[in-house]
Amino acid sequence: MNYSVKQMHAFFNPSSVAVVGATKRINKAGHVIFKNFAENKRRGIFKGEIYPVNPNEESILGFESYPSVSKVRGDLELVVIVVPAKHVTDVMKDAASKRVRAAVIISSGFSEIGNHKLEHQIQDIAKKGEIRVLGPNCLGVYDSRTGVDMLFLPETRVLTTGDEIVATPRPMPGNIAIATQSGAFGVAALDYLTGLQMGVSKFVSFGNKCDVNEAEMLHYLLYDEETRVILLYVEDIRSGREFLEVAEKVTVKKPIVALKCGRTKAGARAAASHTGAMAGSDRIYDAVFAQTGILRAKDMEEFFDIGKALALQPPATGKNVGILTDAGGPGVMAVDECEIKGLNVNRFSEETIQKFERLKKEGRLPKFATNLNPVDLTGSVTSEMFEVAAKILFEDNEIHGIILLGLHHTPALQEDFIDRVARVASKHDKPIVACDIGETEMALYTRSRFDKLGIPAYFSPEDAARSMNALMRYGLYLKKKNCLKEYLQRFHKIGGKQQSIPV
Amino acid sequence: MNYSVKQMHAFFNPSSVAVVGATKRINKAGHVIFKNFAENKRRGIFKGEIYPVNPNEESILGFESYPSVSKVRGDLELVVIVVPAKHVTDVMKDAASKRVRAAVIISSGFSEIGNHKLEHQIQDIAKKGEIRVLGPNCLGVYDSRTGVDMLFLPETRVLTTGDEIVATPRPMPGNIAIATQSGAFGVAALDYLTGLQMGVSKFVSFGNKCDVNEAEMLHYLLYDEETRVILLYVEDIRSGREFLEVAEKVTVKKPIVALKCGRTKAGARAAASHTGAMAGSDRIYDAVFAQTGILRAKDMEEFFDIGKALALQPPATGKNVGILTDAGGPGVMAVDECEIKGLNVNRFSEETIQKFERLKKEGRLPKFATNLNPVDLTGSVTSEMFEVAAKILFEDNEIHGIILLGLHHTPALQEDFIDRVARVASKHDKPIVACDIGETEMALYTRSRFDKLGIPAYFSPEDAARSMNALMRYGLYLKKKNCLKEYLQRFHKIGGKQQSIPV
Repeated sequence: MNYSVKQMHAFFNPSSVAVVGATKRINKAGHVIFKNFAENKRRGIFKGEIYPVNPNEESILGFESYPSVSKVRGDLELVVIVVPAKHVTDVMKDAASKRVRAAVIISSGFSEIGNHKLEHQIQDIAKKGEIRVLGPNCLGVYDSRTGVDMLFLPETRVLTTGDEIVATPRPMPGNIAIATQSGAFGVAALDYLTGLQMGVSKFVSFGNKCDVNEAEMLHYLLYDEETRVILLYVEDIRSGREFLEVAEKVTVKKPIVALKCGRTKAGARAAASHTGAMAGSDRIYDAVFAQTGILRAKDMEEFFDIGKALALQPPATGKNVGILTDAGGPGVMAVDECEIKGLNVNRFSEETIQKFERLKKEGRLPKFATNLNPVDLTGSVTSEMFEVAAKILFEDNEIHGIILLGLHHTPALQEDFIDRVARVASKHDKPIVACDIGETEMALYTRSRFDKLGIPAYFSPEDAARSMNALMRYGLYLKKKNCLKEYLQRFHKIGGKQQSIPV
Repeated sequence: MNYSVKQMHAFFNPSSVAVVGATKRINKAGHVIFKNFAENKRRGIFKGEIYPVNPNEESILGFESYPSVSKVRGDLELVVIVVPAKHVTDVMKDAASKRVRAAVIISSGFSEIGNHKLEHQIQDIAKKGEIRVLGPNCLGVYDSRTGVDMLFLPETRVLTTGDEIVATPRPMPGNIAIATQSGAFGVAALDYLTGLQMGVSKFVSFGNKCDVNEAEMLHYLLYDEETRVILLYVEDIRSGREFLEVAEKVTVKKPIVALKCGRTKAGARAAASHTGAMAGSDRIYDAVFAQTGILRAKDMEEFFDIGKALALQPPATGKNVGILTDAGGPGVMAVDECEIKGLNVNRFSEETIQKFERLKKEGRLPKFATNLNPVDLTGSVTSEMFEVAAKILFEDNEIHGIILLGLHHTPALQEDFIDRVARVASKHDKPIVACDIGETEMALYTRSRFDKLGIPAYFSPEDAARSMNALMRYGLYLKKKNCLKEYLQRFHKIGGKQQSIPV
């Protein structure tokens, strides 16, 4: 294993790029991809040179078109190939003669449909020509900061009514990297993260992985300053040894959350006919993930939920949860989920209980509030009460993480409770996650405000509990590896929990 | 067990109601509740007479105020009591002398804080006076059709900025009834269902259940024509015998979905300090639910997801799932979740596979589409392709339910695929659920359009699979009870899957 970070830069921040198969025909992949580069260049986001390659055009979108890669004037670092599979070998040979450094092959029609021979030819040319290859049969790269955008799905589409509507949005810059074997899932993930206002650093779709694989990409992302969390979707991992080595190096610095599909027999069969994945026993993957400290999500929602938690909050130093709520029922739900996941929801220490009792006597907490864990501030809760109660839990060293269920429906609660709690949280290293239930205005505002202030908010108590579980599991892994302290120092140095979602 | 449906009508559709503790002071519960009735009466939704009861006021919101219940002129069917706990016995005595039929006691301060004596007094007065009681310590009733609205939380609230914002919305009329032990969770559920445009028939919060309990309410909802599905949130069930008897009667006619919290040791302890619930062993609840055909949701999200599926779609007659997708990865996720839940994702019959092969040869399906189950129509999918592929699955008698993963991001897919698939679905009794991943415009449109056309849509493949699982589990229960045929006939008679969400 001897990966070069520098080589990989060509994919994410090339000084020059040619789009082979660029065309004027809108809706064609070759048009959309070249247009993405052209627009991002005009906006000043993409700083490199761009060249359309198409022998049948004089110019495309105002850029002079070249008949072939080797005819491009000046150096060329990256080619994006969008021509039919049968032409790809010629393009690759031409690129090798031009001393291109990297190629992204969007085109499909290779090993995924049994055409292994063609894929081997590509591999040979690439190896001889020292060209690094991403794909084939992939969606390529999207980088929110450099303006590299190879997604051939336009951001908006036109409905049959003539209305234009957002269809495949690009998320704002952020700290989450997405590395995915399934292109379709990757695009859906971008749509999901955009809607939840979660920022993305880099997006990369592997496709058939004929050269660059997960292991090398993880290694690259380890050194990527913009990336704080890596979301990895895989159906199979072929170079197991390398993967193990790299993953162990990465997870002591940055969390990796994995969604590994094909878990069941029928699922594995489906994966095989999707990407030709040799899924293998799911237990082996469980073992690999556990050994390397990769957090395995049980489903899509948990995948994103955990990613958000780790992007915004530090891992916990232990497994004791303190739950603070204004709604009894949802409090019970959170307790159940914590216990099921193996976390502790212990009765608070006498000292902490006495602190609550004192505040109750002083009339600063509701008389009938319960305070054994959960703390239930009841429907009489006010912003001040959430603030003082949160403070007590943050100051209790026996509690390693806090779940705040701030249901907004209670009549006396003003929305400034969010900012008040966030202010308390900012003074401590202890992780906190939040929940408000509902899908109309005030609930959306509440969760979004929490997110903005760096407290990941969820729409069910169980989601919040599962996210806290990930923060605790990851913290315990780092502790075992003697890396927790260092991680926490770095976490707070690179912005801390308050600044990780740009507002 | 000898429940009277007629008695219960007084709670949901009273000919006359007095709000005891009505006041002019806004934000007070007594104000909000009376205002709800007054506004719904002015709008012509609430048809009964309304009386504010408050000895210190001449009139409230233009209605003459009465010093006591017994002073109200004319008959009085229902009283809603919002005065402090210590005054409730007097109000109840007065109500008995007035021959009031039913009372909702919103006030708290009874057995939930250990004041059992006061609650027993209330019970005695009610029994002697033949008054049926809901509560105390509850949120009462909301009926989307009769205009009964006892929720003391106003629909909108004013932020510190001065902006008015939707905070506790009332959902539109629909077929889902909510019966809940936790008031706070109940309100959150209304917020959630409103946002997802899921209609509600009736909402009832039990509180301390000093008289009317779950069993009697389930019995009432069995005969309620507006209710198709019952969502039941409980922390404990005290009258087990009655509950068993009623639940068995109900579930052969209408599905009950239960969210039973306090599953774990710590959860049970939390429930005990919330509603004084004696949660008991969770295994007993599992057994009760299984025996009575109640579908138990594992968490809040599944609770609502299953409710939506059963409100819109018929139960399945078997466990074989057919999956239709345009995205391989999400297809694999759905397969995994189906298998984990014990459903079958079998390879299609030769006949069905041949049908797909024929369409591929004719160029009506993509050449590289896979068709073993899932059917993956790939990124080349069009509306017509989804339509013809869905038709094949609907016509295959070995498939009992269909999961459609219609990810909108594929470039050639027009939004009319939703209507086309719904048209095919409307010609068959077989259940179908859908999924599109994403949280921006087109994804929201896609799911909402599916919902509108009676196909419940979910935001993850696993959610869709879990909902199909509920339709299959419920179908098998009905089959075992020899009630499936009858249920299906009734299901299609009362509107069928296309009309169950009013648009």
